Amino acid sequence: MTASDRWLLPDGVEDILPPLAGRIESLRRDIMDTYQRWGYQLVIPPLIEYLESLLTGTGNDLALQTFKLTDQLTGRMMGVRADMTPQAARIDAHTLRQDSVTRLCYAGHVLHTRPQHMLTGRTPIQAGCELFGSASEAADQEVIRLMLETLRIAGIPRIHLDLAHVAIYQSLMSEADFDTQTEQAIFDAMRRKSIPELDELLGDRAAATPAGRLRNLARLSGGIEVLDEARDVLQGASAQALKALDELARVAGGISTRFPDVELGFDFCELRGYNYHTGLVFAAYAPGHGQAVAQGGRYDAIGRDFGRPRPATGFSADVRALVALGDRAGVPGRNMIWAPVSDDPALADAIADLRRTETVLQALPDDSGATPEARGCTRQLIQRDGQWVVESL
Amino acid sequence: MTASDRWLLPDGVEDILPPLAGRIESLRRDIMDTYQRWGYQLVIPPLIEYLESLLTGTGNDLALQTFKLTDQLTGRMMGVRADMTPQAARIDAHTLRQDSVTRLCYAGHVLHTRPQHMLTGRTPIQAGCELFGSASEAADQEVIRLMLETLRIAGIPRIHLDLAHVAIYQSLMSEADFDTQTEQAIFDAMRRKSIPELDELLGDRAAATPAGRLRNLARLSGGIEVLDEARDVLQGASAQALKALDELARVAGGISTRFPDVELGFDFCELRGYNYHTGLVFAAYAPGHGQAVAQGGRYDAIGRDFGRPRPATGFSADVRALVALGDRAGVPGRNMIWAPVSDDPALADAIADLRRTETVLQALPDDSGATPEARGCTRQLIQRDGQWVVESL
Repeated sequence: MTASDRWLLPDGVEDILPPLAGRIESLRRDIMDTYQRWGYQLVIPPLIEYLESLLTGTGNDLALQTFKLTDQLTGRMMGVRADMTPQAARIDAHTLRQDSVTRLCYAGHVLHTRPQHMLTGRTPIQAGCELFGSASEAADQEVIRLMLETLRIAGIPRIHLDLAHVAIYQSLMSEADFDTQTEQAIFDAMRRKSIPELDELLGDRAAATPAGRLRNLARLSGGIEVLDEARDVLQGASAQALKALDELARVAGGISTRFPDVELGFDFCELRGYNYHTGLVFAAYAPGHGQAVAQGGRYDAIGRDFGRPRPATGFSADVRALVALGDRAGVPGRNMIWAPVSDDPALADAIADLRRTETVLQALPDDSGATPEARGCTRQLIQRDGQWVVESL
Repeated sequence: MTASDRWLLPDGVEDILPPLAGRIESLRRDIMDTYQRWGYQLVIPPLIEYLESLLTGTGNDLALQTFKLTDQLTGRMMGVRADMTPQAARIDAHTLRQDSVTRLCYAGHVLHTRPQHMLTGRTPIQAGCELFGSASEAADQEVIRLMLETLRIAGIPRIHLDLAHVAIYQSLMSEADFDTQTEQAIFDAMRRKSIPELDELLGDRAAATPAGRLRNLARLSGGIEVLDEARDVLQGASAQALKALDELARVAGGISTRFPDVELGFDFCELRGYNYHTGLVFAAYAPGHGQAVAQGGRYDAIGRDFGRPRPATGFSADVRALVALGDRAGVPGRNMIWAPVSDDPALADAIADLRRTETVLQALPDDSGATPEARGCTRQLIQRDGQWVVESL
């Protein structure tokens, strides 16, 4: 290891410097304020928890993403949170224990063993909202709208929203009654959207069988017109599958009325987070970026795994990625005031007074570096007739 | 493990719930805004780094406090930050590389293997400021004043500020020239302020020897009057020790002029962070709480260890502890507006409009729980003559 290597950060780990850090902080504040105005209350879940509570109700993906630590006090395994959603679900089920709807929001670092993608690296700053206690479509609509509002605040242009409903896949699979191995192979092929593999696995099934419907659904993707094609494919399918499709159509209708500029897309292969999602799932995309910038969905099953069945839906986004992809204006220049080195108590008073609203940079005796202008100062404190006054530099 | 154990959090790890989470967020914003008005720029260092860079220039204490992880991408050891100060020093030395004074501030979770004390647990929210590139007393004074300003904003009543200077101990020890084992024993005894042990270790030395001076200095503690007693003890000591004492006296004078209400204390046994501090060190205490609520000091040596010698001084505090100990008013009640379940687009428009400044909680069809009043609403949106208007509940 060379001397310069020594200071390199691990892959997917970065310092966030000025002025980017200020832009992230500013967006973080604006979106958290918005969440609170929608009635979502801030919680600060811990960075670490015992592994079994951190991974409750979540799938194998999250287990792989989670760094493990040994608790030196008990010898038990802990994990560094890789996702704050299950923490919010635990807080709802075990700490708050409210009977009515609970709306929670949060923002903080999470840690991943491997980078999920370039923009978020291994230490995303996750911000999100979770709504517990309502299985209604109105709840799904509320969180999708709040997610889209988040992207609007971040200045993400031309949002594409993918909508899907995992119950459609779930009900077809349970009707089809495959053996576990075939089920896993189909799941993998669906996830990778590999039509040739699906054809091989399901190609001999008639269109009017659950397997045939799966094969045909996997081919469908596109805008709102695809919902009608899906209705044709699902003709004669179980009530559960048809109900899910209706739900998808109604929520899509509601969203397109409120957000006519958002482009809707439907993809029946979408099995992201299938291990913990149970109903409507959604993901928002920005132009020119292949990964979702915000995503979420319904996950009614976690509540049951936490020992207190509560319907749940929510979304989250990485604040760092939102800043990178949005065209939100930077934090305005600081237009600072320069103050000289001096022991004069009147200067200290003048500085303290100005700092209620202004940024004052005071010189230090051994700081012979840059000029006040080069440091971003446009004005200075200067003594005139025994008074400290602010003048242009 | 019983079912209820499963949801217990590890010792020293906690959920921060509403309304406490809101109070922490509000204080965090106010102090970060203050730091920026003093010219400190926000940085967001990463949660994890390679261990060798995370622990550069710091002592064994920090190594013990740091959780270790294996980087799955390289097999190298990483650590979860237990202190953000060395990260700020690395950023100053290796990322920003400015020649003039650099002022940085930060706020974020750190993680400790064991709780340092009750209030901060194992996941403190560390906020702090670091000033690089000035060895001046003015720089020391600036960071102490900013630390005291932090405590004022937090509403900590009756602050006690302990001041010390590690160069006094350092120069006496280097003059005394003990063997390594004795040196370690003295260090341990000083740290535990064990006068009997120090007497045993140093009891036979004359008052005018370095060892005798150490023994007599260890006995001194109290207010500003102690500085004169220290001057007597140090009569004839090295120029380095006398210079450090003068520096301590001048900085104390400066602070007591600006903060006449702050009680000053001096303790020549203070070796907290001795492994990385090099000059003036300081710690602030609140009444009835044995641990420092904020602390800092000069650490000129880390820059050298980072391969770029830069004088440095700074402080940090745990925002969670500041909220617990301060008497700062809570976040004002939300005085929310209740909105009914309805698909009326005019209602959605009215809600969107109100949410620019107000908190609006919209009912959900299956949320039969608490009344609007019990949820903190004082007003409601109601339809009158085809218009949605806000009325008292």
